[in-house]
Amino acid sequence: MNATKAKIRLGMIGGGEGSFIGAVHRIAARIDNEYELVCGAFSSNAEKSLQSGLGLQIDADRCYASFQEMIEKEATLPTEKRMQVVSIVTPNHVHFEPAMLALENGFHVILDKPMTFTLAEAKLLSEKIRETGLLFCLTHTYTGYPMVKQAREIVKSGTLGSIRKIYVEYPQGWLSTFLEQSGHTQASWRTDPARSGIAGSMGDIGTHAFNLAEYVSGLHVTALCADLNIVVQGRKLDDDGAVLLRFNNGATGVLMATQIAAGEENNIKLRVYGERGSIEWKHEDANSLLVKWTDQPAQIYRTGAAYNSSLSNDNTRVPPGHPEGYLEAFANLYRNFANCVQAKMNGKEPEAAWLDFPGAEEGLRGMAFVEAVVASSAAAEKWYELKV
Amino acid sequence: MNATKAKIRLGMIGGGEGSFIGAVHRIAARIDNEYELVCGAFSSNAEKSLQSGLGLQIDADRCYASFQEMIEKEATLPTEKRMQVVSIVTPNHVHFEPAMLALENGFHVILDKPMTFTLAEAKLLSEKIRETGLLFCLTHTYTGYPMVKQAREIVKSGTLGSIRKIYVEYPQGWLSTFLEQSGHTQASWRTDPARSGIAGSMGDIGTHAFNLAEYVSGLHVTALCADLNIVVQGRKLDDDGAVLLRFNNGATGVLMATQIAAGEENNIKLRVYGERGSIEWKHEDANSLLVKWTDQPAQIYRTGAAYNSSLSNDNTRVPPGHPEGYLEAFANLYRNFANCVQAKMNGKEPEAAWLDFPGAEEGLRGMAFVEAVVASSAAAEKWYELKV
Amino acid sequence: MNATKAKIRLGMIGGGEGSFIGAVHRIAARIDNEYELVCGAFSSNAEKSLQSGLGLQIDADRCYASFQEMIEKEATLPTEKRMQVVSIVTPNHVHFEPAMLALENGFHVILDKPMTFTLAEAKLLSEKIRETGLLFCLTHTYTGYPMVKQAREIVKSGTLGSIRKIYVEYPQGWLSTFLEQSGHTQASWRTDPARSGIAGSMGDIGTHAFNLAEYVSGLHVTALCADLNIVVQGRKLDDDGAVLLRFNNGATGVLMATQIAAGEENNIKLRVYGERGSIEWKHEDANSLLVKWTDQPAQIYRTGAAYNSSLSNDNTRVPPGHPEGYLEAFANLYRNFANCVQAKMNGKEPEAAWLDFPGAEEGLRGMAFVEAVVASSAAAEKWYELKV
Amino acid sequence: MNATKAKIRLGMIGGGEGSFIGAVHRIAARIDNEYELVCGAFSSNAEKSLQSGLGLQIDADRCYASFQEMIEKEATLPTEKRMQVVSIVTPNHVHFEPAMLALENGFHVILDKPMTFTLAEAKLLSEKIRETGLLFCLTHTYTGYPMVKQAREIVKSGTLGSIRKIYVEYPQGWLSTFLEQSGHTQASWRTDPARSGIAGSMGDIGTHAFNLAEYVSGLHVTALCADLNIVVQGRKLDDDGAVLLRFNNGATGVLMATQIAAGEENNIKLRVYGERGSIEWKHEDANSLLVKWTDQPAQIYRTGAAYNSSLSNDNTRVPPGHPEGYLEAFANLYRNFANCVQAKMNGKEPEAAWLDFPGAEEGLRGMAFVEAVVASSAAAEKWYELKV
Repeated sequence: MNATKAKIRLGMIGGGEGSFIGAVHRIAARIDNEYELVCGAFSSNAEKSLQSGLGLQIDADRCYASFQEMIEKEATLPTEKRMQVVSIVTPNHVHFEPAMLALENGFHVILDKPMTFTLAEAKLLSEKIRETGLLFCLTHTYTGYPMVKQAREIVKSGTLGSIRKIYVEYPQGWLSTFLEQSGHTQASWRTDPARSGIAGSMGDIGTHAFNLAEYVSGLHVTALCADLNIVVQGRKLDDDGAVLLRFNNGATGVLMATQIAAGEENNIKLRVYGERGSIEWKHEDANSLLVKWTDQPAQIYRTGAAYNSSLSNDNTRVPPGHPEGYLEAFANLYRNFANCVQAKMNGKEPEAAWLDFPGAEEGLRGMAFVEAVVASSAAAEKWYELKV
Repeated sequence: MNATKAKIRLGMIGGGEGSFIGAVHRIAARIDNEYELVCGAFSSNAEKSLQSGLGLQIDADRCYASFQEMIEKEATLPTEKRMQVVSIVTPNHVHFEPAMLALENGFHVILDKPMTFTLAEAKLLSEKIRETGLLFCLTHTYTGYPMVKQAREIVKSGTLGSIRKIYVEYPQGWLSTFLEQSGHTQASWRTDPARSGIAGSMGDIGTHAFNLAEYVSGLHVTALCADLNIVVQGRKLDDDGAVLLRFNNGATGVLMATQIAAGEENNIKLRVYGERGSIEWKHEDANSLLVKWTDQPAQIYRTGAAYNSSLSNDNTRVPPGHPEGYLEAFANLYRNFANCVQAKMNGKEPEAAWLDFPGAEEGLRGMAFVEAVVASSAAAEKWYELKV
Repeated sequence: MNATKAKIRLGMIGGGEGSFIGAVHRIAARIDNEYELVCGAFSSNAEKSLQSGLGLQIDADRCYASFQEMIEKEATLPTEKRMQVVSIVTPNHVHFEPAMLALENGFHVILDKPMTFTLAEAKLLSEKIRETGLLFCLTHTYTGYPMVKQAREIVKSGTLGSIRKIYVEYPQGWLSTFLEQSGHTQASWRTDPARSGIAGSMGDIGTHAFNLAEYVSGLHVTALCADLNIVVQGRKLDDDGAVLLRFNNGATGVLMATQIAAGEENNIKLRVYGERGSIEWKHEDANSLLVKWTDQPAQIYRTGAAYNSSLSNDNTRVPPGHPEGYLEAFANLYRNFANCVQAKMNGKEPEAAWLDFPGAEEGLRGMAFVEAVVASSAAAEKWYELKV
Repeated sequence: MNATKAKIRLGMIGGGEGSFIGAVHRIAARIDNEYELVCGAFSSNAEKSLQSGLGLQIDADRCYASFQEMIEKEATLPTEKRMQVVSIVTPNHVHFEPAMLALENGFHVILDKPMTFTLAEAKLLSEKIRETGLLFCLTHTYTGYPMVKQAREIVKSGTLGSIRKIYVEYPQGWLSTFLEQSGHTQASWRTDPARSGIAGSMGDIGTHAFNLAEYVSGLHVTALCADLNIVVQGRKLDDDGAVLLRFNNGATGVLMATQIAAGEENNIKLRVYGERGSIEWKHEDANSLLVKWTDQPAQIYRTGAAYNSSLSNDNTRVPPGHPEGYLEAFANLYRNFANCVQAKMNGKEPEAAWLDFPGAEEGLRGMAFVEAVVASSAAAEKWYELKV
């Protein structure tokens, strides 16, 4: 612990009342004491933004009415006062503009997934990130779990042999009924093509599943065959889908993402099969990692145990058996990002482990996935190439 | 209990040394004391057939050198002595001929799945069953589990609402290496197109998954999109595959069957989602049935509990908490079939519950599934119609 | 498999209509085709015994009106016809007499637990077994499970280090209400001191838990401190109890047995902790064995996997992932006993593995446990010595 | 959300480098943004306290060298600046003095468990709390879990009927070896009678188990029979124990707490059985609550689901299926306490739900438990009365 380390000054775009993910980002930023929330444009409604900010103990003059105002005004503040990182937690259609503007004004960016509204935007944003040299984190939460990181390490070590098969699934049930016109904030924008983009469930949770599969396996999807459905009458975007996958090493896979699986909560699950063994991780039991072998007993790896890789254990806070969950996984992204930001500000190279958070490449691939599944689902041909 | 009921006289074709499924059929036939094994053509090798039969306490003169000999000679025995039911437990290429011959000679037939080598054979065999009016059971074991039956009853009751989504998976790992030329009996024939047919894993276990999904949901697959793979080098038939499904009520689904999932045993699992709730059953925990709801706590149904339907509870033998397994599920098929055979021999109508075993229709649909997945996998078009 | 091996001729005492355990013994005897049930005194009511026997395809003249009649008459039959083994499946107060009589007449005995009505009887019976040199099996079912045997092997191997702590529990809920006067056969005799003995739950299921703990650990209980309760008003015997244990190596433990644990089925569970690791087995997931370590990932051993000891795998019938359950565990006792009987009849030494079934010593210790827990529960002193 | 609510100013005693629980308290205080850590006496070593405080962005002049100094100096600061609540996270022998001093100087107190070094101290401290009218929270973490609260609500509702049996267990394995002289901070003080008190494991984790059982059942232990052991050679305090329990309504129970259960992490588990059903909660799957019934399927309650009581759901932050864990349970104690502190400062009555955190009574009972188990373990008589 560096005794004199100051907190990073954080601003937030979006995340006012009714936001689920805004509150999550704020808790994630607080858990490890690395950030101080100093300003926000919490809503496009000025009064709502102000009230939200005051509730968060933010000075009234740093509760802004728009992201444009926030970025512009913060940029004029003295360096020792102005925000250093901006978190963007708005619906998908308000990802690109604030992210571009923030980068152009010299702010590091944390952005909720999916990266943008379109793949074209994602490309422009990636280019901007590259140009500015600023840091960028895309909050694919599930890669923040210690046991997901351990899974990646095990695959990478080669002990499972070449990867042959990947199953990833993300079943939810909360959109089983036509919630979107009943005042349900989350349902409302996530099912609206004007705010969510060309995909519904595939953009919202399919991208998480896709990212998780690629992160753990270290492979890339090269082609896919998708079947997207609108199950609930009146809905405008897919609320269900399944995708056959081909990976760059010849492995194949299946991705299932649905929001009409009545009774399901949020049990994203990944299985990766190699020649000699396999890993299985599921969100419902996030602190366990099952490793199965062809010729010896299956093993249960557990969060924080001494036998884990440091990549995994550096992302825990309490001893084994004291469960950490979603908020801590999210906090891991924030902490690793903070370490990199601190390093950059101090002119140092970040440690390799700190770089273990999703960024521009993951964002680009996610958007390419979204465009590919929508195109494939509409096509009569079986296979569709996934290209960034 | 009928105090004077005699056992049914059973003959067996196949099931000599090295056979896995032959021994299973015999245990299944013994558990409920409904059958007496009186004869067999346990192998196409006469000496091996004799030795196998003697080991089973069968008279030497009823240990036959071929199924033709057995059926021919048994047919000439006095009615009170000759076999009444024949179990055929040979590899797939020896299903059609003995089944046809048995029916033509007046014997009821129990046949291991898949029904035949080709769909064309299955059609002829179905026609023969219809013509003769004899009884026919196809041993899709998983439908014999009490909790699978309970799942079917719950779906049928309508409390889940219309079915929208079905996931069925059957992961095995035992063919992860090139076993077939190492003297492994099971691997040898199951990967051999000359004995197994046009499909490997899809015929062996994909048909079980397909049958389970249709049995529980009460729906029929109408179209599919398959991706079959030969993962292990040198293998001649698919050892892995995934299939997107469309059902006759508009529901969709995914079927995954693989034998190269390193570390997996035999954990066939089914999830069926309706508008208001869903069921989940997995072989690994076969005596539990999970029922999830959108608005109340999930429930765990358990084998033999008083709240189950009689269809389910009539297929158990011991009180709740005393686990029954694969052999008992298999025995349920045998017992229900026995009840029907007894009724028929006594000129009575069977009770409806006794008819709850897979038969010709399930066999036909299984073969249609096999032909459709193989054709679909080879096709460039996405969807392929499943027709019987 | 020995091609010329004849089945063992089995007689049964008890097990007529309404008996739970009689049916279980018969299925266990059938599963591996080692026995033929040739006679029985299924009830002390002659007509009921006859009807039960006929329903089992037994000749009317070998359906006896009493165990005395059966043993006497069978003893006069030609050796090639008369029964060879007798299974006694009556309530506890009818264990001693028929077992003694059977032994005196030269029959091997399979006896349901607990061994006798009193410890004094158990001593006499043990003496008789020793004198006659006949074989004796006490059906403590749970030691028949392959994963229980594997647990024993692991403890025995020493890899866990010295055993320090043992928890064994057996929670049931079926006696949560006052069933015994509502015509419930099982409840009626199991709660009746005249038929069950001085203990209720402790005799019925506590003895199973005690036996399981001693079997797996290889240790002996030397002293205990018991608290038995009659929870349901009007009941005459304990329906609940907990016992602190001391073992002969200095380890301590806790045994919990209850039949008023509302909602529980039959989930007997054992945990044995050594210096470096521990095992955990529970009936609910009988085909898994959890092995936990201080310094490496926990392992899941699974029934039938190639890495198991032969002692374990010789007690399975189907490949890993095809669950075997309670009836198969029971059948393992019968099969191992059959192997020993066959060896004895052929004048051969049994293989060591065949001797792995509970016998007179386990019976004696179980009765000593029953007497000790009842005495301890009534005592004001904390510790009570367990002596055989 | 109250837009103008200021954070509570928190001071901390203990929790410097090497402290496990100090870091936990700080995260708990941060998660819901209710507290600002403004000062601390993090160590009795002045330099270490300073360095720890600076690392936490605390002003150097509020990093104190001793708790006496901190309380004395803070008490002299202007009311709008001085700390309002003090968290005491020191080893047990440094609980009583700082807590008394804090109360005497007008500070609300959060104290880690067990309450004090002796029961006598606990009585004095309770009296002081009563006298001053200040607020007091004892951090028995497990009562902070939403599903534990739901369990309490279900028991309280009476649907399970009268409670008859309680099993509570807390197995850990981390003291399986003689860690205490190897520089392991936690092991060092927790096994030292001079710092931990008369009990080792029973004080450290037995008190948690005791508190959990009483909290959920709403019952009080009236007598007990304990067997404490020192398993690891050289250790000075119990590292293992089991306790038979009697409750004030006639129910009985068993409490098991051990730190030498090799391979166990921290899986505290509670089962409470009533006449008609039971609840089961375990830390390993903290977001599920199993409710079993005698006559209907078991139910799985899940954190955050709409069907839960508000007492439960008010203690969650994210939607069902996004696991919350140990830190969030801890944060629930801090948040509920904060709500009460805010109410008190504003001269308002707290809402009933905010009072749902452990306090003086729980602390007293815990210390009475510690003294009773130690006395009972040394006694030859079976039962020992638990008196506060």
